[in-house]
Amino acid sequence: MLDAYQRVCGTAMFAGNVELPGMLVGKVLRSPHAHARITSLDASLAERLRGVVAVLTGPGLVESDLNPYYGPVLPDRPLVAIDKVRYAGEPVAAVAAVDGEMAEEALALIEVEYEELPALITPEEALAPDAPAIHDQVRRRDFVTYPDIVLNTDAGRNIFNHYRLRKGDLEAGFRQADFVFEHTFRTPHQQHCSLEPHITTARMDGDRMTLWSSASSPFTARFQVAETLRLPQSKVRIIAYNIGGAYGGKTYPRLEPLVAALCWRAGGRPVRVELKRNEEFYTVTRHASVVTLKTGVTRDGKIVARQVRILWGAGAYADVSPRLIKNGGYGSPGPYHIPHIWVDSYAVYTNTTPSGGFRGYAIPQVTWASESQIDLIAHDLGIDPLELRLSNVLRDGDLFSTAQECSDMHYPELLQTVADAIGWRTGPPSPPEGEGCGVRARRGKGIACAVKGTITPSTSTASVTMNEDGSATVMTSTTEVGQGSRTVLAQMAADELRLPLERVSVTFADTDVTPWDQTTSSSRSTYMMGTAVRRAAGEVRDQVLDLAASMLEASPADVEVRDGRASVRGAPERGLEFGQIVRRSRQGNLLASGTFQTEGGLDPETGLGIATCHFHQSAAGAEVEVDTETGRVKVVNLRLATYAGKVINPTLAELQSEGNIAFGVGQALMEEMVYDGGAVANPNLSDYMIPSIEDLPQRWAGFLVEDPSGEGEVHGLGETGAPPIPPAIGNAIYDAVGVRIKDLPITPEKVLRELRVKNEVA
Amino acid sequence: MLDAYQRVCGTAMFAGNVELPGMLVGKVLRSPHAHARITSLDASLAERLRGVVAVLTGPGLVESDLNPYYGPVLPDRPLVAIDKVRYAGEPVAAVAAVDGEMAEEALALIEVEYEELPALITPEEALAPDAPAIHDQVRRRDFVTYPDIVLNTDAGRNIFNHYRLRKGDLEAGFRQADFVFEHTFRTPHQQHCSLEPHITTARMDGDRMTLWSSASSPFTARFQVAETLRLPQSKVRIIAYNIGGAYGGKTYPRLEPLVAALCWRAGGRPVRVELKRNEEFYTVTRHASVVTLKTGVTRDGKIVARQVRILWGAGAYADVSPRLIKNGGYGSPGPYHIPHIWVDSYAVYTNTTPSGGFRGYAIPQVTWASESQIDLIAHDLGIDPLELRLSNVLRDGDLFSTAQECSDMHYPELLQTVADAIGWRTGPPSPPEGEGCGVRARRGKGIACAVKGTITPSTSTASVTMNEDGSATVMTSTTEVGQGSRTVLAQMAADELRLPLERVSVTFADTDVTPWDQTTSSSRSTYMMGTAVRRAAGEVRDQVLDLAASMLEASPADVEVRDGRASVRGAPERGLEFGQIVRRSRQGNLLASGTFQTEGGLDPETGLGIATCHFHQSAAGAEVEVDTETGRVKVVNLRLATYAGKVINPTLAELQSEGNIAFGVGQALMEEMVYDGGAVANPNLSDYMIPSIEDLPQRWAGFLVEDPSGEGEVHGLGETGAPPIPPAIGNAIYDAVGVRIKDLPITPEKVLRELRVKNEVA
Repeated sequence: MLDAYQRVCGTAMFAGNVELPGMLVGKVLRSPHAHARITSLDASLAERLRGVVAVLTGPGLVESDLNPYYGPVLPDRPLVAIDKVRYAGEPVAAVAAVDGEMAEEALALIEVEYEELPALITPEEALAPDAPAIHDQVRRRDFVTYPDIVLNTDAGRNIFNHYRLRKGDLEAGFRQADFVFEHTFRTPHQQHCSLEPHITTARMDGDRMTLWSSASSPFTARFQVAETLRLPQSKVRIIAYNIGGAYGGKTYPRLEPLVAALCWRAGGRPVRVELKRNEEFYTVTRHASVVTLKTGVTRDGKIVARQVRILWGAGAYADVSPRLIKNGGYGSPGPYHIPHIWVDSYAVYTNTTPSGGFRGYAIPQVTWASESQIDLIAHDLGIDPLELRLSNVLRDGDLFSTAQECSDMHYPELLQTVADAIGWRTGPPSPPEGEGCGVRARRGKGIACAVKGTITPSTSTASVTMNEDGSATVMTSTTEVGQGSRTVLAQMAADELRLPLERVSVTFADTDVTPWDQTTSSSRSTYMMGTAVRRAAGEVRDQVLDLAASMLEASPADVEVRDGRASVRGAPERGLEFGQIVRRSRQGNLLASGTFQTEGGLDPETGLGIATCHFHQSAAGAEVEVDTETGRVKVVNLRLATYAGKVINPTLAELQSEGNIAFGVGQALMEEMVYDGGAVANPNLSDYMIPSIEDLPQRWAGFLVEDPSGEGEVHGLGETGAPPIPPAIGNAIYDAVGVRIKDLPITPEKVLRELRVKNEVA
Repeated sequence: MLDAYQRVCGTAMFAGNVELPGMLVGKVLRSPHAHARITSLDASLAERLRGVVAVLTGPGLVESDLNPYYGPVLPDRPLVAIDKVRYAGEPVAAVAAVDGEMAEEALALIEVEYEELPALITPEEALAPDAPAIHDQVRRRDFVTYPDIVLNTDAGRNIFNHYRLRKGDLEAGFRQADFVFEHTFRTPHQQHCSLEPHITTARMDGDRMTLWSSASSPFTARFQVAETLRLPQSKVRIIAYNIGGAYGGKTYPRLEPLVAALCWRAGGRPVRVELKRNEEFYTVTRHASVVTLKTGVTRDGKIVARQVRILWGAGAYADVSPRLIKNGGYGSPGPYHIPHIWVDSYAVYTNTTPSGGFRGYAIPQVTWASESQIDLIAHDLGIDPLELRLSNVLRDGDLFSTAQECSDMHYPELLQTVADAIGWRTGPPSPPEGEGCGVRARRGKGIACAVKGTITPSTSTASVTMNEDGSATVMTSTTEVGQGSRTVLAQMAADELRLPLERVSVTFADTDVTPWDQTTSSSRSTYMMGTAVRRAAGEVRDQVLDLAASMLEASPADVEVRDGRASVRGAPERGLEFGQIVRRSRQGNLLASGTFQTEGGLDPETGLGIATCHFHQSAAGAEVEVDTETGRVKVVNLRLATYAGKVINPTLAELQSEGNIAFGVGQALMEEMVYDGGAVANPNLSDYMIPSIEDLPQRWAGFLVEDPSGEGEVHGLGETGAPPIPPAIGNAIYDAVGVRIKDLPITPEKVLRELRVKNEVA
């Protein structure tokens, strides 16, 4: 990475480094109840405390000139609770004071009385016939914020969106099947656990507000803050420096509107709010899921029909669930050619922290279900699980679940790569090692694969300038969330410009000036923004070339550009440095913009159409060792293969595999937000477990498969690798000890319980 | 102004508001001598003082990896003196410490020994045959920084550039003349006295440096800082917020390279240097001038030939003098049609603070000379001074001094306007008022006119985005120096975009992201940047129109855009808000860039050619009252007429007239940097006098003449008005009491002395 030195030395700039003169500290009072009516709220003492500059409460908000509600798709989330709280940890009031202690003291002086309501924690509870409505109305904007999202908001109480896929004739499909399998799988809420918590500092300058924030998609934050303040977007500026991890948790604003409102109420004085670790658990989570798969298969292992019903535990507010349930919906049939598919994917309000995007964007949940069931089916039919997959995976020309024609598909190679790497057919599991082995340890192998789309349609824009000294600046709103986007975009620009890498700089995102980008998420930046940068840089290079040709009195076709210099082909001494060319042009700099836009979209009735501009594809193979006495699972070998198309930066690409492996193992074995009586019981990194180095597989490797031509299309790698890992591990456990865990995470307790059940049955 | 509220409330952002964590304070040790060799310098104690982080001295600089010299045209100015000091107040060392007191203490510990050399304060002294060379070599870059500047650096000792104009046959011209007049006029060094002193804060982030600075032309600062640090320009970022007055004093960097070097030496820690008022006097000044005019006139008042010799007191370093002496050179014949002109304009090194641009850019000095001499000639020939001017002023089709054909000329109207306004022919001077009047007070009237070019060739670029909600952002590197550029550019963008003004925001300059602009100076921003903004905004409007046409299923010709909405002509209900159009386009924003470039340039041998893209024209009329007992001059009436072409913002345009009047009166009667023994004797605002409200004319008004068609080209107003004011006042004094002062300022002492001489002669 270009900024490795700064990262190592601790000088890289983050939102937390922003300090402003006179800056106030904001703190948030949170609800202790998951679902309750607020019967009274008295903040008068807090307001009168010396050092307190602004207090934000529901009653005050309703009377104010601010827009009380926000949310990227449905504006259903109040800045602070109004009349009602809908999840434990929801903001009930916020205070800005001259320091943090003062703010905490003020919070303690706010008296709130609640009348508790039934807490609906799981989607099943929320859909029970006697469940109360969490929201008593559906709030919608008078315009569509995201054109790819179809809103079916009238699917029932507590359901605020329904994605429906209807491909083929489901009943006919099941009639063709020799066997029909039906299983239900579950995944829990998870937290992103970014190293950097959400942090935002806001200040008004006249009629404009600037926010320095950990916003990974700053234009999304700008839109929401402008709406909160009822200002034109041109009066709101979001600056995003380095972001200490996002993983989907910072794509949509959960903090910025609140801080903007506090700053507004403080008369524009700077206000910073930095969440504590436990508050992160009240900010955004991964969706819990209940996935029921009914799959029809022929005797010889052809999947002919699949019906999917998914209940997404979306938490108390809609956030981006209306889009996510679509991706999970069309992704749930997996990377298989299945003629008849019906999917019903429901976003369900629950009294939990609102759910949002999380690395993989619904694909981990549905892949867990689908790839576990494929394994179940294979064992039941007596077909090798690898063979069953190979005979059903999508190949070029096949139709995806949305009836989109597939191309650039690589499943056989991906599956074979991981199968070979774990010795799938070539030998038995390696013998357990160490104390007590052979007595209580059992080993087994499992594989799985996954398909993921990337947000489509989608747009990225970039600008590139060549400066008077021939150096170049790339202007982009892609945010650096640790993935190395600034390095990769610099490489691509340098490549197009024919400049040494060290002469290229890449800006941080600043919505006032860096060109619009839809989002830094969905594994899209290298592909989408990279293409926009290449286009802009290519145009600058063409300008250089044309200017050089005219200055060198040669035809443009005879001019070559290389290493910061343009010269006449065959006469290298007839040349000009780029800097000379820019200076002679008197244009000060050479500027060009590039736009890259993909097309697509799904039919609102059938859910069919172009779901993604290309397919992110992966496969994982795992070998595990199960301690039959404790139920503990050790991953002894994990192999991941991901289709990369074309790798730009091998080191950063490999690190994406590494990160996916860590995420996958955590999801498989450890991560779970435990709800106890409506509240999160483990909102900290002592009780909420994420993998340490010790928990990672003993051996692991990530393989990146590239297009052999070297000219492949860049495929994002950020999210592709993790989804197949939990089912590969689950399938390996089955292989080892014959028990099937259907609910993540696979804790020792669950394994032990299933082993006991199995032994009792036996 | 759009930001009037912020200005009044003190919340407008200036460089001085930037505070960074861990910020060091930098202070500068300055030379007490005007010209001396440094025989020893010991900073070892200062370096060892606790709290001192970086010390910059000449010897250390030479050994360092930094580039020791800077300067916009000739790199002749060391960051801190090396071996020699060349003016009193020159930086000899600089220190960065944890606070200002510590830095001052460190400065006091630096021991410097000097060996004094003769101080050459005036250009005549510097050109004396026995004068020592102030520089022993001419430092040049291996590339041309500014293509409009011709460097003739071998014109003699202490002359570092010579602009030569040769139009017609001078000898023949003088032969045609009935009378030849020769006079020499002088002007002193002046200080800009911006309310905000120079201030710069620098910080390294990894391999990049950011400077928040009072730089009115940030790209110029970027170029110089990159050179100092030997970094590509893409690694240097200059951010310029509001600037508290510049007047030419902040166009080229005088502080930024030094602060960048200190920051570099401090390992990249933030360093702020804020100059004190007295230090401003050691930073940059207006050129002193000695202008000798030899003018041939026919009996009936036709000017047929003029020879001009100008010595510019340029101070110790070249700064931008090589360009300035060109403008003063071609401007010295004034706005007159003169067939035969020779000009020799010399930039002379002196042991004074380096001279740079100053509102009017050499035109005040030469206008003082030329318009005083015209008055002298008129009186001598017995021709009314207004008539003499009217019969010689440049009209459309005439040839300017550089043989450029004139168009859009308005002198008769300008002169007549001010003549009428002061009652030039219609009556005698108004009677003196108040105590003692009639006994010792005398009144008189004077007029003068001036011509000024604007930097040509020149380039401005701008970008405009329309956001998802239909609001717009103008990206520009024009700096807000108090002239209201952000308001005016917002107006022009709103006008082109058909948007309400309040939906348009204008960025501050940030060289990383705002498009390149040559400079905020030369009264060019409204014209040059305004045109670039109009082009960018117009292109965005066309994009809106095309998108709307396709969305409304109409032909673009049938779509009209107005007030943020596009609709089908004649069917206003078939329309879309701009925000709807942007959102539906899925482009996130609509972005366009605009470039405006003027062409021109002068022949290096003859000085002939296109000097300016158009002419800035003004005339002033003054009525004064001279106290014959004290010599004190009161301006009782001052009228200024300026050709504006087209006024964008009447209030801001009038304020430019107001500012020009204040500057003109100050230059006429008060302002002068007094050198005493090589040092500035009055480096503070108690002893250096600028006009207070009390000193302004009793009555005054500025007239802005616009093209009657309403479609005139915008003419900059920032500098046009001041130059004719001092000669108008001088000429009025002559009219009142018959004495002619040839050296500015016209102090009571000088008037009294001349009155005594006159009375003695009489």
